Amino acid sequence: MTKVVALAGGVGGAKLVYGLAKILPAGDLTVIVNTADDFVHFGLNISPDLDTVMYNLAEISNEQTGWGRQDETWNCFAELDKLESVNWFKLGDRDLAIHLERTKLLKSGLNLSDVTTMLCNKLGVEVCIRPMSDDIVHTIVTTEEYGDLPFQDYFVKYHFEPKYISHRFFGIHSAKINPDTRIAIQNSDIIIICPSNPWLSVLPILAVEDMKQLISQKLCVAVSPIVGNEAIKGPAAKIFREMNINPSAFEVAKIYQGVIDGFILDKVDSSECDLIRACGIIPMLTETIMKDKYSKERLAKDIFDFASQLKKGN
Amino acid sequence: MTKVVALAGGVGGAKLVYGLAKILPAGDLTVIVNTADDFVHFGLNISPDLDTVMYNLAEISNEQTGWGRQDETWNCFAELDKLESVNWFKLGDRDLAIHLERTKLLKSGLNLSDVTTMLCNKLGVEVCIRPMSDDIVHTIVTTEEYGDLPFQDYFVKYHFEPKYISHRFFGIHSAKINPDTRIAIQNSDIIIICPSNPWLSVLPILAVEDMKQLISQKLCVAVSPIVGNEAIKGPAAKIFREMNINPSAFEVAKIYQGVIDGFILDKVDSSECDLIRACGIIPMLTETIMKDKYSKERLAKDIFDFASQLKKGN
Repeated sequence: MTKVVALAGGVGGAKLVYGLAKILPAGDLTVIVNTADDFVHFGLNISPDLDTVMYNLAEISNEQTGWGRQDETWNCFAELDKLESVNWFKLGDRDLAIHLERTKLLKSGLNLSDVTTMLCNKLGVEVCIRPMSDDIVHTIVTTEEYGDLPFQDYFVKYHFEPKYISHRFFGIHSAKINPDTRIAIQNSDIIIICPSNPWLSVLPILAVEDMKQLISQKLCVAVSPIVGNEAIKGPAAKIFREMNINPSAFEVAKIYQGVIDGFILDKVDSSECDLIRACGIIPMLTETIMKDKYSKERLAKDIFDFASQLKKGN
Repeated sequence: MTKVVALAGGVGGAKLVYGLAKILPAGDLTVIVNTADDFVHFGLNISPDLDTVMYNLAEISNEQTGWGRQDETWNCFAELDKLESVNWFKLGDRDLAIHLERTKLLKSGLNLSDVTTMLCNKLGVEVCIRPMSDDIVHTIVTTEEYGDLPFQDYFVKYHFEPKYISHRFFGIHSAKINPDTRIAIQNSDIIIICPSNPWLSVLPILAVEDMKQLISQKLCVAVSPIVGNEAIKGPAAKIFREMNINPSAFEVAKIYQGVIDGFILDKVDSSECDLIRACGIIPMLTETIMKDKYSKERLAKDIFDFASQLKKGN
């Protein structure tokens, strides 16, 4: 039995987690999910990355959009539109049920970890999904055009078009690790950092309390979200460029230097292996683009085998 | 021009208000609605009576149920059911939009009067609908079986089956009248108390600050919600009985003694006219059951004509 902890953001993370869940017994996988993009909308507590991971594992996610639910209807949203309300964050009728139930449970005094476990139980998700913290962390992205933007404004409302200048995670310095999450990390054999946005999805997780130190003590591998100098989805490559860094798998590996032992990058980026190796990180080439269920599972297996070999070599 | 203010609870009130709106210019009618049964559900601010009046005037109400919206869908609610969540208060997908928008606007710092006006504007309702107060009032019904119940638990969850012992309106002593509502009453020529539950819908309105005194200074008529010793809808007759009072139009008139000048009761209760007259209240017999749009309008006209005659007689 090899206990695995995966760190995940939204869509890319959820895809790999789906693959990992297919190859591992449910009890051997814990997913720690970014909650730095959580927000309150219409008074409801919305956790976009938790939902994306949860919906993927419950096999009720919308494969076309990457977010939200399959067989969704939009009658509430259509009425909000008639009321000329805020309409940049789409709320599906079925999706709303999760936001309502999460809000109700949080208001009853439960923490986000327990609420997430309860929602997973109801959705039949056996893998343990945990928020990075039960404490509130808010990402603010400072942009050239609009100054400071709450993350969802930057990401959804403005489609990450404004020019990135910097970002901050408000609340991160007081965000604690849930004791059960700490135990899951301590009991793990392999940590896998999913192909999520390093700046906005993974670094907030690593910035929670002593998360980085805990993970550094474990065998850890990361998967590049940058393939051929572009992000599969989202603003990762664009942000690299706006930081005047050429987006590449190597640059992602550098961000995780000191935390990871191995780095999985796409075959198209094979020329970067030497640079990565020079950082003291062992590279592994494979096909990293997850188009379908099969490729998710195949990538998960490649990563797991790679990490298992590194473990033996340790 | 005769300025009319109507006091209304939920379904019965909304029906008469619909009729009044058909015979009066929009600017001449103000409806003051009970908010003592407002509650927070899933973190959302729900105002059942305001919604019922608003939906009726917008002609988007569900005529079968009396509450909620026509052409409603229940996908969010179905998902909540799968989550084994609270399911006794039905939340339609379209209806949810109003709760979401109200909650958002209240959280932004607007008061309930302004929020209601904004929602009415968006729904094309020209009649001025106002909550009885912008302050929170909570009805608690004490029952034999369950002790103290929040109003919606008594009314919806337990279908007003538990035996009524007493009730209280928490917050009523500090509930203020919105200045614009006060002006509407002061500028009115006729006040009409709709056929709503006297105990749980009308008395809380009259108990707000100096509402009773303001209204007593005006020509005021009330419509009996009790016809032939039964309520058209809801627990009014049952509560009378549990108070050891025989439910009758006369008993309703007695509750409003000192406030009303005239009382409209159904022809089937003609035998009660003398008792009502003996209380110093002028009775008027008509058909009070509103089955369709036509009968709502006809009753509104009867009431308006009766009140106008009383006014001349004054």
